[in-house]
Amino acid sequence: MADTLANVKGILLDINGVFHVDNQPIDGAVETIARLKAKFPCRFVTNTTTKSRRELYQSLVEMELPINESEIISAPYAAVLYLRQLNNPSCYLLLSESVKGDFAEFEQSDTNPDVVVVGDIGDRWNYEIMNRVFKMLNNGAELVALHKGKYWQAEGDLQLDIGAFVTGLEYASGKTATIVGKPSDSFFQLALNELELPAENAIMVGDDIDSDVGGAQQQGIRGILVKTGKYRQELAKASEIEPDLVLDSVTDLVEILE
Amino acid sequence: MADTLANVKGILLDINGVFHVDNQPIDGAVETIARLKAKFPCRFVTNTTTKSRRELYQSLVEMELPINESEIISAPYAAVLYLRQLNNPSCYLLLSESVKGDFAEFEQSDTNPDVVVVGDIGDRWNYEIMNRVFKMLNNGAELVALHKGKYWQAEGDLQLDIGAFVTGLEYASGKTATIVGKPSDSFFQLALNELELPAENAIMVGDDIDSDVGGAQQQGIRGILVKTGKYRQELAKASEIEPDLVLDSVTDLVEILE
Repeated sequence: MADTLANVKGILLDINGVFHVDNQPIDGAVETIARLKAKFPCRFVTNTTTKSRRELYQSLVEMELPINESEIISAPYAAVLYLRQLNNPSCYLLLSESVKGDFAEFEQSDTNPDVVVVGDIGDRWNYEIMNRVFKMLNNGAELVALHKGKYWQAEGDLQLDIGAFVTGLEYASGKTATIVGKPSDSFFQLALNELELPAENAIMVGDDIDSDVGGAQQQGIRGILVKTGKYRQELAKASEIEPDLVLDSVTDLVEILE
Repeated sequence: MADTLANVKGILLDINGVFHVDNQPIDGAVETIARLKAKFPCRFVTNTTTKSRRELYQSLVEMELPINESEIISAPYAAVLYLRQLNNPSCYLLLSESVKGDFAEFEQSDTNPDVVVVGDIGDRWNYEIMNRVFKMLNNGAELVALHKGKYWQAEGDLQLDIGAFVTGLEYASGKTATIVGKPSDSFFQLALNELELPAENAIMVGDDIDSDVGGAQQQGIRGILVKTGKYRQELAKASEIEPDLVLDSVTDLVEILE
């Protein structure tokens, strides 16, 4: 285990499912964050798509988790950076109302957009929306997805996430979505840039074997799976991804690193 | 072209998009069916999932298309044959009300079914249904889909088909759907059995490059693409599937075969 965590100089950590579950901090979360931050630069990398960065920060404050707004790298933030690289694109935004605010600089189009941005619209997914986006894609729109998560955890149960709808749209249209959040290369590169570290000096801690562990490893970052949040033994076993380390909880990390 | 159609002794034909579009027979459809049937055994193989076999037959009668009920092989019919092979499965049926009637012999379960059968529920797809099926699959249910079509044609426009939702459920659950309609191997084998012919003596005519042409070729049946119905030049070009023959319309087939 000592070898596995050699030369760590910075840490990337998922938030939801790692430090809190259903707006309830896990035992020891506050102390763990404080101790990790005292020792290493940390960035909190999240695919949360229901909240703007500011709202996300406020919800962490409410849970008394000591994370600064500037330490958060979220999928919507990564999407805005991506869209700025395009030539002033018109967008159709499948986003929660609050996250839409982060995209105010882009023109919106409900008919013939350059880009469809798929994020979180909760339980509002239906045939009419899927068919509308399918037609936009056929008319030349590019598909951008905040992430392609398979499921998330709420009320003790796994709930279907937006990856199912993104995959369905890719299948029908023949197009490949640009993923801007985890596990995309660009997202982890953004996070490493903010840590100012090469991949071999960073570790990523998360409860999602695909987005967190797999995405990090793809970039040469060691991936640590925690057994909180959406972790399910049978799903982790079924995955082809092999975490560098599996911990019962992120709180176990402090001692190992010390 | 003579070579392409050598040794034809029986014909499989799609119906919707080949002989009619939006309940309107294409010009020459009636005569073409009569002349083809006079010369060859024919089976009409359809992924139509909104109608029971009987209703489908009645709709063809209304359009005055001379097709017998016994000549129709439909995806719901293939699904019933498939389910009979399982051990008395309980089913959750995502089917139109009329097609559900064809499945009356199977016990239904809305909570913990052995099999989820995905067919056509029109524009009723929504998050709640997708999430419910996702949980059933996580609890061990098998996923059966009547087909995995990407789009269908209505009112001059391509409309999203059920393949998008089937693919999304496969992605999120990690399970692979058993496809019972076109382009599955079992469906085309069923059709060849009814023609009582080996694959090399049959041709398949359809407007769907994937389900019709690709599915047939997979079984060694020559696949003919017609430019009616959902045919779109750009989508056909983008496909990796190469039809054995492309015709403007099924009505062109009669002369070529004579």
